[in-house]
Formats: sequence, C-alpha cells, structure tokens
Amino acid sequence: MKTDRNELMKLMKLMNETDNFFSEYGLLDDKVYGEGAISKKHKELFLLAISIVQKCEECITYHLDECIRQGAVKDEIIESIKMGMMSGGTTSYPYIRKIFALLNEKKIIGKT
Amino acid sequence: MKTDRNELMKLMKLMNETDNFFSEYGLLDDKVYGEGAISKKHKELFLLAISIVQKCEECITYHLDECIRQGAVKDEIIESIKMGMMSGGTTSYPYIRKIFALLNEKKIIGKT
Amino acid sequence: MKTDRNELMKLMKLMNETDNFFSEYGLLDDKVYGEGAISKKHKELFLLAISIVQKCEECITYHLDECIRQGAVKDEIIESIKMGMMSGGTTSYPYIRKIFALLNEKKIIGKT
Amino acid sequence: MKTDRNELMKLMKLMNETDNFFSEYGLLDDKVYGEGAISKKHKELFLLAISIVQKCEECITYHLDECIRQGAVKDEIIESIKMGMMSGGTTSYPYIRKIFALLNEKKIIGKT
Amino acid sequence: MKTDRNELMKLMKLMNETDNFFSEYGLLDDKVYGEGAISKKHKELFLLAISIVQKCEECITYHLDECIRQGAVKDEIIESIKMGMMSGGTTSYPYIRKIFALLNEKKIIGKT
Amino acid sequence: MKTDRNELMKLMKLMNETDNFFSEYGLLDDKVYGEGAISKKHKELFLLAISIVQKCEECITYHLDECIRQGAVKDEIIESIKMGMMSGGTTSYPYIRKIFALLNEKKIIGKT
Repeated sequence: MKTDRNELMKLMKLMNETDNFFSEYGLLDDKVYGEGAISKKHKELFLLAISIVQKCEECITYHLDECIRQGAVKDEIIESIKMGMMSGGTTSYPYIRKIFALLNEKKIIGKT
Repeated sequence: MKTDRNELMKLMKLMNETDNFFSEYGLLDDKVYGEGAISKKHKELFLLAISIVQKCEECITYHLDECIRQGAVKDEIIESIKMGMMSGGTTSYPYIRKIFALLNEKKIIGKT
Repeated sequence: MKTDRNELMKLMKLMNETDNFFSEYGLLDDKVYGEGAISKKHKELFLLAISIVQKCEECITYHLDECIRQGAVKDEIIESIKMGMMSGGTTSYPYIRKIFALLNEKKIIGKT
Repeated sequence: MKTDRNELMKLMKLMNETDNFFSEYGLLDDKVYGEGAISKKHKELFLLAISIVQKCEECITYHLDECIRQGAVKDEIIESIKMGMMSGGTTSYPYIRKIFALLNEKKIIGKT
Repeated sequence: MKTDRNELMKLMKLMNETDNFFSEYGLLDDKVYGEGAISKKHKELFLLAISIVQKCEECITYHLDECIRQGAVKDEIIESIKMGMMSGGTTSYPYIRKIFALLNEKKIIGKT
Repeated sequence: MKTDRNELMKLMKLMNETDNFFSEYGLLDDKVYGEGAISKKHKELFLLAISIVQKCEECITYHLDECIRQGAVKDEIIESIKMGMMSGGTTSYPYIRKIFALLNEKKIIGKT
C-alpha cells in the first residue's frame, strides 16, 4: 500500500476527472492557512493545538514540523500544546506524550 | 493477542452469559444497516462517510470493502468520500489519503 | 440580532472583499451535496443522520425539510434517524425526540 | 410543537409499525443503565459526566435529576462534575455553570 | 435560575470547601490563555476558532468579545472564523451564521 | 523515539522551567480521579467507558489495567464496556473488539 504523503496527494488530484473538488478544496485550505492577517506561524500553532483536541496523531506530527519550519520557538510550541491540552481534556494525554517524544527526538527539549 | 475480527466477534457473544446485550445490540445494528427503504448499498456509503467524520481507520477499511461488496461504483464511493471530507473538516485529510491508498491498491482508481 | 438564514448568508458573501472564501466554500458544498452519482435525496438523508451524530439541532431542522423537499418518504426518513441513533449513541436521544416532534407537527407521523 | 418528554417517547414507540427498533433500543438502554454489578446510582453519575463531555444540555438536566433520585449526595455529584470537566476540557465551562445554576436552584449548593 | 456568568463563577468557587479544584482549574486556565510567548490576542483568536469546531454557542459569543477586547481587527477575526470553518466542517454553518449576525450587530461588518 | 510512558511523563515535568503547568495539571488530574466520595474503582470504570466513547486506544489499555488494579471484577468491567458502547455508538465497535482481545489475553474472559 502506498503511504507516501506526496504520492497520495497526487492520487487525490487524479480524482479530478469529473470535477475539480479535491484541487479546489486544497486551494481553499491553502488560502485559509496561508500567510494573512494572522501569520502562517500562528496558524500552524493553532493547527497543532487543534490536532491535539481532535486526537489526530498524523496531523500532530505534520503540524509540529510546520510550526518549526515557520520559525515557531520552543516556548510558542509549548504554549500551543498547553492550549490543546486544556481544550482537549485528559484524554489528550497520550497525544501530548507523543509530542514530547518528538520534541525530545528533535532535540528541542530534553537535557543535553 | 487475538486480532481476527470474527474470532473477536465470537468472544463478544460469549459475554452473553448474564444477558444477551452484545447479541441484541448486534441484531439491532444488522436491522438498521440492512436492506430497507434505503438500500444496503446507500447505507454502506453513509457508513464510509461517517467513518471519515469520526476518524475511525478500521471502520473506513471495513466499510470501503462493504461498499464494493454491495455494488457501489467508483463515482459513488468518491462522492461518499467528498461528503465525509466536507462534514469532517480538514483534520480528515490523513484518513482521506488512506482511502485513496486503498482504492489504488484495489485498482479502483489510478492509472492503468 | 438578525436571525434570518438568507440574510445571514448574504452577510457572509459580503465578506468576500479580500478573497472569495465564503462563496467558494459554498460552491464546493453545493457541488458535493448536489445531484450526482448518489442522488440529492440520499445525500440529504445522509445529512439528516450526520446532524444527529453531530448533535446540531439547527442542522436537523434544515435537513429534515430538505429530505421532504427531495421526495424522501416516511420510511426513508425513519431509517435515516435510526442510522443517526445507532452511530451517535444514547446522547442522541434528545435530538431524536425533537425530530419526532417535528415529524408529528408536519403530520408525517402520529395518529390522525 | 410537542415538547413533553413522555409524549415524545410515546410517539417514538408508534414508529414500531414496521419493526420494533425504537422499543428494542430503549430496552437495551434500560438494561445497560439499570441496577447491576455497577449500581444505578453510579451509572447515573457516569451519565452526568458523559453529558458534560458531550456538551448535551438536555442530557445534563435529565441525568442530574436522576442522580438525585438514585440517592447521590452532593459530594458525589460534585466529583462527577469534576470528572466531566477534566475529560471534556475548557469548552465544558458553559455547561458546568449551568449545572451549578441548577444545583443552586435545587438548594443542593449555595449559602442558606 | 441564575444565569449571570459572574454569579455562577462565584457559586463554583463556593465548591472549594473540600478542595480547591475549581479555583485551581481556573488558575491553570488563566495561565494557559494569558499573555505569554503567544499573545493573548492570538490565543483568543484560537479560542474563537476552537469554539466553532466544538460547536459551543456560548463560547463563541464570549471569545468573540474577548478577541475584540484584545484588539483583534476585522481581518484577523474573519481569518479565525475561516480556520474554524475549515477544521469544523459543514456542520459548523449554523454557528458561522451566528457569528456573522453578532459581527453585524456590533457593526464590525455590514454595509454602513 | 522514546515511547516509555514514565520516561515521557518525566520529559513533561522538565517543561516546568517557566511555570508548573504540567505538574499542576497532573496534580488536578490525580485529585479528580483519586479516592473520594466516588471510589477510585468506580472512577476507573468511568474512565474505561469514556475512553471507548472518545475512541482512544491507548487510554483503553491503560484504564482497563487500572480497573483491574483497583479490584474491579469481570461483571463490572463488562458493564463499563456496555455503557461505553451505548454512549459511543456503533463506531465504537473496533475499540470494543480490542478490549475483548485484551480481556481474553488476561484470561478474564474466554473458555478455560
């Protein structure tokens, strides 16, 4: 089974035979989460928190990387995690632990 | 750990010692999702969409197979996916990609 | 406060000054839920069920009307309600009761 | 529009013409939440907490009354609310405030 | 029944007889959503979007006011609404319409 | 990537440099779910049911172990599962099957 994100995104685009739904949805998504009155960095910090609330592991991994790519520093990322935890409740715990494992792996937190 | 779906369903039935809850719940489930005023095919297309909304990967795999078994064609399955995506919002993306990987593997979509 | 659905939809369109997001999102929505490989009637029956699962009272009222407008008969509507109830679990009860009150008011169910 | 809970429950039972779904679902519900290995009081305390997590106002009102009817004392009810709040996260706040308004009205809390 | 937010918050604090749970939870909440590495304004914009995703009407009204109080301008608020809509999916529509009614009433949008 | 629960909990505590959020949240969690007017055993039975409703596999595994550690017997655990299933709806099925696989593995259910 294909698992590569980009290849799968291409497959989705192939679905545009009948209409352009998947491309148009993707364009809307880019528009909403791109640079704007709210910066792309703050939008990615929001998406990290919402991924915790919606308990989506793959989303967490992706948006954590995006936060870093947009220049979010450790303290901003930690605050985003706290917002996700307060809004998502105690069943967010396993997802929070996974983020900390990722942050440790990326040497953003942890003793050196 | 047992992981076979049918064996686990049998285990559940064994729980009927005290009352028949799991069997009765299963019968209700069959009644609601069986052939009726709405066809079983349309019900499975609904269940595929709702599995996306509820972000349940195992449900997606199962109901995609059921859709095909009930004779749903590619265009119906794609429309069901779109409904799940519109109702479920952008955090459905990882689940949508997995369906496309499955559809590709089953040669329902993709270049030939 | 304005509460009229159509007037509010117009307000939303006014927001298109900077980009066309709300109009484009609306067009995607129309495309996904319009007549297609799956009929608009079956899509509205799906939307009634999903409104129960997502416990959205205003959505229920709206999509029940749409189901009727698309020619869904009593037995189809009842089956859609059952699917919503099975998928949504027992906390759907208050919403189910409201649909029955609406169906009774519209003389679709109840003794005459 | 009818709003009386019992009348609406009767309407639902009328729907049993074709099959007994609504009655059978109701019986399963009674079986699961009746007196058992876990007492009905503890089950109602659970249902109060889950109603907070699922943000269902009508469920909260109903299960709070049921908790009291089953003999739950103030400290048990407060602990159930706390569990709902920890599991449901900060968006539970408006629902928590409503429970406190109800508890005050019923003279279970508040200065005398 | 008391409905005033502040009075109800006071009632909640009265519950601190046995332990300080409600006060401590409130302090954590203040800490997480106060000024920090991420500004309070951006946190309120996040809370507006998450209130849409979680379909909590009272939360929407409250956090919209907080956004304005923290100096968020129209374009930032509109972007927050769009993020909530993309993440929350089409069942967010009724909530989006209510925000637009509020924004119109507050003369933040609409023709002059 | 670290996956050990306790090590990850320690990492989280390291985040207390700036404030004590993660420790304080943990203390609140312990307070709410510890022995009280409602016994810790009943609270764990609640947490097992809520883990099913929130479809959190890691939570299920953890709280099932906690139920057993707190002395919950088979019939109490089965009733908790039934409550989770009724409240969580049919998309809980895959999670229910996993619990039965775990119960079988722990020799709590199954033929001997």
